Amino acid sequence: MKKRLILVMLLLAAVTLGLVAQPAGESATTWKVSEQSTEKTPKYVFMFIGDGMSHVQINAAQVLKGNNTKGSISLANLTFTEFPVVGLQTTYDATSFCPDSASTATSLSSGYKTHSGVLGLGVDKQFVGKTITESLKEQKDWKVGVVSTVTLNHATPAAYYAHVPSRNNYYDIGVQMANSGFDYFAGGSVNKAEDGGKKSIYTLLEEQGYLVTDDKNEILSLSSDSGKVYAQSPRLQDGGAMPYAIDMDASDVTLAQFVKKGIDVLDNEKGFFMMVESGKIDWACHANDAASEIRDLLAFDEAIQEAVRFAKAHPEETLIVVTGDHETGGMTIGFASTGYNTAFNILENQKASYIAFDEIMSDIIAQNPNLSFRQAMVLVEEYFGLASPGSKASDDALVLSEFEYSRLEKAFKQAMMPESSRESDQLSYQLYGSYNPFSVTLTHILNNKAGIGWTSYAHTGTPVGVYAYGVGAELFAGSYDNTDVYTKLKTLVGIV
Amino acid sequence: MKKRLILVMLLLAAVTLGLVAQPAGESATTWKVSEQSTEKTPKYVFMFIGDGMSHVQINAAQVLKGNNTKGSISLANLTFTEFPVVGLQTTYDATSFCPDSASTATSLSSGYKTHSGVLGLGVDKQFVGKTITESLKEQKDWKVGVVSTVTLNHATPAAYYAHVPSRNNYYDIGVQMANSGFDYFAGGSVNKAEDGGKKSIYTLLEEQGYLVTDDKNEILSLSSDSGKVYAQSPRLQDGGAMPYAIDMDASDVTLAQFVKKGIDVLDNEKGFFMMVESGKIDWACHANDAASEIRDLLAFDEAIQEAVRFAKAHPEETLIVVTGDHETGGMTIGFASTGYNTAFNILENQKASYIAFDEIMSDIIAQNPNLSFRQAMVLVEEYFGLASPGSKASDDALVLSEFEYSRLEKAFKQAMMPESSRESDQLSYQLYGSYNPFSVTLTHILNNKAGIGWTSYAHTGTPVGVYAYGVGAELFAGSYDNTDVYTKLKTLVGIV
Repeated sequence: MKKRLILVMLLLAAVTLGLVAQPAGESATTWKVSEQSTEKTPKYVFMFIGDGMSHVQINAAQVLKGNNTKGSISLANLTFTEFPVVGLQTTYDATSFCPDSASTATSLSSGYKTHSGVLGLGVDKQFVGKTITESLKEQKDWKVGVVSTVTLNHATPAAYYAHVPSRNNYYDIGVQMANSGFDYFAGGSVNKAEDGGKKSIYTLLEEQGYLVTDDKNEILSLSSDSGKVYAQSPRLQDGGAMPYAIDMDASDVTLAQFVKKGIDVLDNEKGFFMMVESGKIDWACHANDAASEIRDLLAFDEAIQEAVRFAKAHPEETLIVVTGDHETGGMTIGFASTGYNTAFNILENQKASYIAFDEIMSDIIAQNPNLSFRQAMVLVEEYFGLASPGSKASDDALVLSEFEYSRLEKAFKQAMMPESSRESDQLSYQLYGSYNPFSVTLTHILNNKAGIGWTSYAHTGTPVGVYAYGVGAELFAGSYDNTDVYTKLKTLVGIV
Repeated sequence: MKKRLILVMLLLAAVTLGLVAQPAGESATTWKVSEQSTEKTPKYVFMFIGDGMSHVQINAAQVLKGNNTKGSISLANLTFTEFPVVGLQTTYDATSFCPDSASTATSLSSGYKTHSGVLGLGVDKQFVGKTITESLKEQKDWKVGVVSTVTLNHATPAAYYAHVPSRNNYYDIGVQMANSGFDYFAGGSVNKAEDGGKKSIYTLLEEQGYLVTDDKNEILSLSSDSGKVYAQSPRLQDGGAMPYAIDMDASDVTLAQFVKKGIDVLDNEKGFFMMVESGKIDWACHANDAASEIRDLLAFDEAIQEAVRFAKAHPEETLIVVTGDHETGGMTIGFASTGYNTAFNILENQKASYIAFDEIMSDIIAQNPNLSFRQAMVLVEEYFGLASPGSKASDDALVLSEFEYSRLEKAFKQAMMPESSRESDQLSYQLYGSYNPFSVTLTHILNNKAGIGWTSYAHTGTPVGVYAYGVGAELFAGSYDNTDVYTKLKTLVGIV
């Protein structure tokens, strides 16, 4: 009997390994790698979501971090591109091949498709089931952390605790966050925390026993004795999010620090689940700003490094999954004008995110409402390295062509008009989207010169990679749907 | 001893499966899935290369083949997207993140990086080593087939048998093809088969004992008794390639038929290796023509189905690997003007490839040199479904906006001029590349309306997927470099 058992085990292992060829059946299911190939259960699960991050965003970070020297190029590895398991997930939602973050995050957190804009409810806006984090808390008493570089009641983080018909119901989502019982919220602020005469979400959080802090020293002192925590970035940027990594200084708390402290707060014998979103990869891609996107992706990778450090200390109990929810911007490495050439090194000349530059411009225009384009070019050179035609720049690649210069001047003139007076035809939308015409033209030109193209200001439909490491990682190999990410996790952690 | 052996085997299997967590080391190699996880050796290997095919090209075919009904959408599976193993390969070459087909195919066939444009030689144009197909023939006496929808001495097929400093040395490549001793060449013609007073490559092929035929009946009668064969498409299109699938009729031989006959010719007890390239996926993407690209990709998938049929009959001896060499065009599902919407169904209105349409236009203009834009619009509606502003079309989505109409009219005027008189500034290149301004604008507009964007007329740097099925398929999981595809194959088939 014992011998037979060993034979069966060997055969099972061999089949899973593909040593024994599986006859290809007619139905899709017979092709799939078995979802039951492991009996180990991870006790510590990290789910990293790069919002808007697909292969090109990742590859662009590898190129910028790699060797760009002419004649001797190479890609740098990121922490997660080295993970042993790679999968591919499709991202379409119930009604769109270019889905939004609410529906895709719902698929990832809860395993079903829904409409764009809907959080934690099905296509008829009815309750379908609990999120993986709600189930883990209820059924296994795990601690739960939700971290995001954007606001904590924004679509992706909200998909792990909220059930609302619209992602725009920020106050309702905030109420559900305060009532979630989750243990660690960190990153950006609460969007629209006040709603008329109602209690502030921050007050609700404190009433529910959360320590709410945006003090860097207090955040860096958090520990497993801190109880439930809402740790907010000391400095906030666009709409209450953490600043872009490109705009950060030593006074800021990085995403890696928030993850490290999250581990300290959540670490316990029963287990924990931490979802970490890098939400401004998406925002930078919406704005077609590659330098800001890449810097945030590299900061995201540093945060993943914290999880890897923990996994090394708990090698038989930890699972790390890194993925995106969809692609944003239709980013490509390669552009019509540059053809087969790239010059990513010139992205280093960008010193501020598009939004930080917009703020700088606003301040200057407030003081000098008649700012000329020639005056603005001084700022362009300082913040983007781009120089007027015929002038000398640190790199010839940074000198604008006459075509680029006139395109930029036209954009500047549009930007100096009140929004209501700007051109609003189809071409203007293709050129500027809903962004400041000047800064979006600057990132377009700098990106194009570097060899980066964009096709959209919205999300696109390309599948996204899944990178897994640790106990149960092998389940994430192959191609599957975003809803399967939930199913695989659910199977692994053993919730019903 | 026996018990111990079983334990070791179990442990090995468990480690490979990830049941036993691998401690993450500092070096990259410790993270990798073992390359020695199987001892089975495939005897029949199919290597399918979709030139210019990355995730978006594949996903676009899944969308078009899938359900595009509003409110109820879904992706269709392709044969190879259902394969159990998925990997990811980086494609940069010795000097470019946007590499060409010569260097990338050399990496795939021979395992080293080289300059763009170089075939089967290293960065100093020196001989580095034999191709996998040369080694298999020499060391294992396998039969070898090379199939391509483009010319058989074009970069990708040539990388499997030729060693030349430039991909443009077509005649030299042809000579090496005739001397390769390979057993089956099929698909397009020989490019530049004549070179001054030298013997035609076709003559050289016949002198080497090849049956050369472009007769459909003769091709469909090929068998293992046919000896060495060069089977050429009865009808040739742009530059001697097979016609685009969208332009084919019943008189043509499809790629699937060439693969099926290849199996008949190559099948033997020792083994065979068949490389099949769909080269016009790349060409259509260069021209930013999504409908033609997708139709060729679906025809490619049908050819893969032939290999799967063979694999089912030889389940313990067959390996099928499907991949791309690089991405072309910077294709995205999603475009600025359409935002989160797609309407792939309108691509069905395109009735001819851009090149077939160019030929139709040429014929008409030859008869009517003063063709007006209004007259041309009749052809536009017939071949692309697009209708003038304000007119009725089968689908509202096909009616041109004023912006699109004027853009098309401008392109038409450019197209009616001799090439030397056309505008050649930076904007014109971004709009038209080196293509006919009229047809490229038509595919741009139709594609954009469908929700497809393009950023380039060249190759781009995104990694490409690897899809594997059969004996040894598991080796192709994970992320790795294109040179590793060769190394994995070499390990599997046991050549030195």
